[in-house]
Amino acid sequence: MSSAVPASPVTIALLGGGTVGSAVARLLVDHAADLEERVGARVVLTGVAVRDAGRSRPGVPADLVTTDAAALAASGADIVVELMGGIEPARTLLLSAIAAGSSVVTANKALLAADGASLYEAAGRHGVDLYFEAAVAGAIPLLRPLRESLSGDQVTKVLGIVNGTTNFILTKMDEEGADYAEVLAEAQALGFAEADPTADVEGHDAAAKAAILAELAFHTRVTLDDVHCEGISQVTAEDIRAAQDMGFVIKLLAVAERTADGVIVRVHPTMLPRSHPLASVRGAFNAVFIEAESAGEVMFYGHGAGGVPTASAVMGDLVTAARNRVSGGRGPGESTYSNLPVLPVGAALTRYYVNLSVADKPGVLASIASAFSDNGVSIQVVRQDGHGDEAGLIVRTHRATDAALAKTVERLSRLDTVRQVLGVMRVEGEAGE
Amino acid sequence: MSSAVPASPVTIALLGGGTVGSAVARLLVDHAADLEERVGARVVLTGVAVRDAGRSRPGVPADLVTTDAAALAASGADIVVELMGGIEPARTLLLSAIAAGSSVVTANKALLAADGASLYEAAGRHGVDLYFEAAVAGAIPLLRPLRESLSGDQVTKVLGIVNGTTNFILTKMDEEGADYAEVLAEAQALGFAEADPTADVEGHDAAAKAAILAELAFHTRVTLDDVHCEGISQVTAEDIRAAQDMGFVIKLLAVAERTADGVIVRVHPTMLPRSHPLASVRGAFNAVFIEAESAGEVMFYGHGAGGVPTASAVMGDLVTAARNRVSGGRGPGESTYSNLPVLPVGAALTRYYVNLSVADKPGVLASIASAFSDNGVSIQVVRQDGHGDEAGLIVRTHRATDAALAKTVERLSRLDTVRQVLGVMRVEGEAGE
Repeated sequence: MSSAVPASPVTIALLGGGTVGSAVARLLVDHAADLEERVGARVVLTGVAVRDAGRSRPGVPADLVTTDAAALAASGADIVVELMGGIEPARTLLLSAIAAGSSVVTANKALLAADGASLYEAAGRHGVDLYFEAAVAGAIPLLRPLRESLSGDQVTKVLGIVNGTTNFILTKMDEEGADYAEVLAEAQALGFAEADPTADVEGHDAAAKAAILAELAFHTRVTLDDVHCEGISQVTAEDIRAAQDMGFVIKLLAVAERTADGVIVRVHPTMLPRSHPLASVRGAFNAVFIEAESAGEVMFYGHGAGGVPTASAVMGDLVTAARNRVSGGRGPGESTYSNLPVLPVGAALTRYYVNLSVADKPGVLASIASAFSDNGVSIQVVRQDGHGDEAGLIVRTHRATDAALAKTVERLSRLDTVRQVLGVMRVEGEAGE
Repeated sequence: MSSAVPASPVTIALLGGGTVGSAVARLLVDHAADLEERVGARVVLTGVAVRDAGRSRPGVPADLVTTDAAALAASGADIVVELMGGIEPARTLLLSAIAAGSSVVTANKALLAADGASLYEAAGRHGVDLYFEAAVAGAIPLLRPLRESLSGDQVTKVLGIVNGTTNFILTKMDEEGADYAEVLAEAQALGFAEADPTADVEGHDAAAKAAILAELAFHTRVTLDDVHCEGISQVTAEDIRAAQDMGFVIKLLAVAERTADGVIVRVHPTMLPRSHPLASVRGAFNAVFIEAESAGEVMFYGHGAGGVPTASAVMGDLVTAARNRVSGGRGPGESTYSNLPVLPVGAALTRYYVNLSVADKPGVLASIASAFSDNGVSIQVVRQDGHGDEAGLIVRTHRATDAALAKTVERLSRLDTVRQVLGVMRVEGEAGE
C-alpha cells in the first residue's frame, strides 16, 4: 500500500457517541499508525456528534465532540460513520452525508431493513460506498463474504442465530430446565436483556437482520414487512424437554430461503438436531449458516453484540471505504436484479413438532392422524405418553407447507379427542424429505 | 450495478482444466446472466489451458481448450485464473500474465507460501489485483474477511483445521478407537487420502496454508520455511483414548500467534477441550478460529476441498476482480508493514500432555516431578495408572515454552524410572494460565 507521494488524509465524521461510537473513536486514535499503513493514508477523525456533550467518554478527544449532528453529517468528510440507531434522524443525516459526497458506514439494522433502498439509491447516484457489516451479527465478518466472497455462487438458504439475548435465554432454559420467565429475569439482571425486552424476545431485532441477509443472499429487495416473525415468549420448559428427548435443541432462527417460486423470510423458535453446527452455538454468541449451490455449507460464528466487538466490524468497513477513497475504487452497490417474489410464510416447506394433550380413550390416534392426512401433512414419528388427564401425544411430521400445518392445527384444536394443542414448532436442519 | 452505457466485457483466461478448473469453466458458462448482473459487464471465457487436450471435460466449450498455457497467460485477458498448482510453471505464467496487465486469481497455496512476495510485488507494480481465497480452506470465505473485514482490528491468534484428510482420519480414530494405519487405509479406499498421503499426513499442506494465514493476520511476511511442522502419523489410539478420558479431542491444527516478541507459526497434532468450537468440526470439514483484540473470537466453517466448493471461492474472487475492472478500483495489496520477527517454535508458550511408561517403584513421581520443575515447567494434573509393566503416568502442564518442554522430555527419557516417553502433545484452547 506504499507509494512515493503520500495520499491526502482520509477524514472520518462519527455520528453517535454511545458504547460502539466511543469504542470506534478510541480505536481510530489508538491504532492511527496501523490504520495509516493499512489504508495508505492518514485516517483523521474530524468530529463525534453526540446527544449529551457533558457525558464523559474516556479516550474520545473532547475537542471533537459536538451536538450538531446535522452540520457534521453534511461536512463533506470522506466517510461518515453512523452509530445512532433508529430510523430518524439517522436516515436524513445519512442522505445529507451522501449528498455531500461522503461514503457511509452504518450499523443501523432498523434503517436498512425499513428503507435500505433509499440509502443505496443515493449512494449509487453520488458514487459513494455504503457498508454495514456491524448491522448483522456484530463482530462476525458475514455481510462482506455474502456480498463478495459468495458473489459467484447461488445461495439457497440462510439459517441464522442473530440475536444474543434470545440465544442466551434458550441456552439457559436448555441447560437448567428453567422456565422462560425465570431465565428472562436472570438475563435482565445480568444485562443480557433490556428492561423492556420486547424487540429481542418477540423476534423484531432478528427480523430486521433477516431482511438484510435475505436481500444480500437472493439479490431481491426484502424489507422488515416481508418477514414473518414469532418470538420465544411462548416457548415452555416442556417444549425444551421434548426437544431434548428427541435429540433436538430449540433456537430462535432467522430463516431465509429461495424456493422454486420465490423467497421466504421468517423468524421463529425452531427445533434443530443437536448434531447441526448451529446447535452448539451457546449463550450470547451468534452464528449464521449458509447453504450455497457450489460452496455447500458454510458457517460464520462469533460475538453478535457488545461495543468493542461491534466496533471491530465498523473499523473493517471504515478501512475498506478509506482504501477505496485512496485507490479511487468502489464497493458493491445494491444488487436486487433477481427481483424474486417474496412469498408469505404459508408457502414455506418445513417439518413440524406438534405437542398435544389428548383424551385417554380408544380412537384418539386415528382421529388425530386423520387431521394430519386430510390436510396433506405426512407424519414421521408419533409418541404417546402418560394416561388419564396426563395423556399426551407428540407428533413430528415430514415436510409440509406452513399453510397445511396451520389448517391441521386448527382442525386438531376442534377435535373432541384433543384437550389442548400445547406446542407447535418448526423443525429445520434435518437432511432428506 | 446498472448504468446507461454497457461496460466492455471482462475477459477470463483459465490455466488448468482439472476438477476445479472444469467446474469454474462450467459456472462461467451456466451462470453468465447472473454474472453479468453482478459484475455490471459481460464476463467472457477466452481460453482454458490444459495439459491433455484429448480428455473429455463436460460443460467446457471445446473450442476454448488449448495446450499453449504460455500464450494464454500472456494474452492480456482482464483476469487470469490459475488452477494448475505447483510452483513452476505456475509462477512464470502468472508473472507473464501480470506483466501483460491481467489481474490474477489463484488457488495455488504452494506458490503463495513459497514466493507470494514476487507475485504481490509484480501485481503492485503493474496495478493489478491478486486474489487467492481458494488457496486456504477451499470454499470457506476466510481470506477476504481476514484481509478486509478484520482490517481495522488486531489479530492475536489463528487456530485452523485446514486439512480435510487429516481431520477425516483423526475423526475416525476418535469415533471408532481405531489405529492410525487402519484409518489411513480406509481413507485411501474412500478417496479422502491420496495413494501417497505424505503432503497431508505430515502436515506440509497445512503448513503452506498456515504461512498464508499468518502473513495476512500479522502483516508480516511468512513463508513455508518459517513454519514448524509435525504430522499425525505418530498419533496413536492410546493418545486418542487419553484425550477422551480428559475431555479432549485431538486435531491437526495450524497455529499462528503474535507474542510480545514476534510471530510463531506451527502445525502439529493438538489436544483441544471438547467444548471448544473447533472440537466439533468433524470429518473432511475445515474451520478457522480467529482471536482478535476487538472482535474477540470468530470462527469460519465449511468445506475445505472438492472441485465445486473450491470453484465457489474462485468465482467469488473472479467477480470481485471483474467488478474492480469495471469500476476502476483495486483490491488490497500485500501488507507486511508490521515486519515482525518470525520466532522458532521453541519460543511458543503452550500447555502439554505427556504420557509416560514408568517403573512401578517408590520415588517415581518425585523424580519425574523434578524433571519438570528443574526445567521451569509447572505441572497442572498428574494421573497414575496400572501396575508393574503396565504402570503409566499422564501429565498435563501449565503454560511453558516449547524449548523448556523439549528439555524436560529429553531429561525424562534419560531417567531410569521412565521406561518410555509414549506421547507428547501440545494443548490449545483452554482459558487461563
